[in-house]
Amino acid sequence: MDYKINELAAREYFPGFLGRMIHMENMTIAFWEVESGAEVPEHSHHHEQLMQVLEGRFDFTLNGQTSTYERGDLVVIPPHAMHSGKAKTNCKLMDVFSPVRDDYK
Amino acid sequence: MDYKINELAAREYFPGFLGRMIHMENMTIAFWEVESGAEVPEHSHHHEQLMQVLEGRFDFTLNGQTSTYERGDLVVIPPHAMHSGKAKTNCKLMDVFSPVRDDYK
Repeated sequence: MDYKINELAAREYFPGFLGRMIHMENMTIAFWEVESGAEVPEHSHHHEQLMQVLEGRFDFTLNGQTSTYERGDLVVIPPHAMHSGKAKTNCKLMDVFSPVRDDYK
Repeated sequence: MDYKINELAAREYFPGFLGRMIHMENMTIAFWEVESGAEVPEHSHHHEQLMQVLEGRFDFTLNGQTSTYERGDLVVIPPHAMHSGKAKTNCKLMDVFSPVRDDYK
């Protein structure tokens, strides 16, 4: 199966977070367009996650440590680790999760 | 843990395929710089894979069907599916695999 990112159905999963998802057998890939100022409150999940900044600047807090990330920056979030984020500018982000995020279906 | 893609150690895993890898618990993320004309012969693996073209044009063949992919195009490769690829131009690609590609460590 092949896809074009911009042709995937988009949905606002959280205020200011427009997401496009691909759900595979063991992974979910999420492409996000984030409005400046939008934030995800601190949370955790059993899924392993890699967050990548594609455009813009994004403040990301992992286990209480905050840094600002830009294009080409990657953050590995282990299962159950507490994390949160806030867009300092309009951003594009990509997340990969394993296992699948059934809650994003 | 955080990383900058360009600071990850790079290795030529196949002729013309310079790769930078992040190995997590259940996933491997691979960033590739591919020389025009470089190719991966047909192969398969038990890992589920998502291939994304970041730059350039890449011919990808999945189960005998070939298409040319460009920036923003995604291909889902199920476990054990036969696939191959050839760079029509210099390319940047990203692959995600689950489970981890121990053979890329």
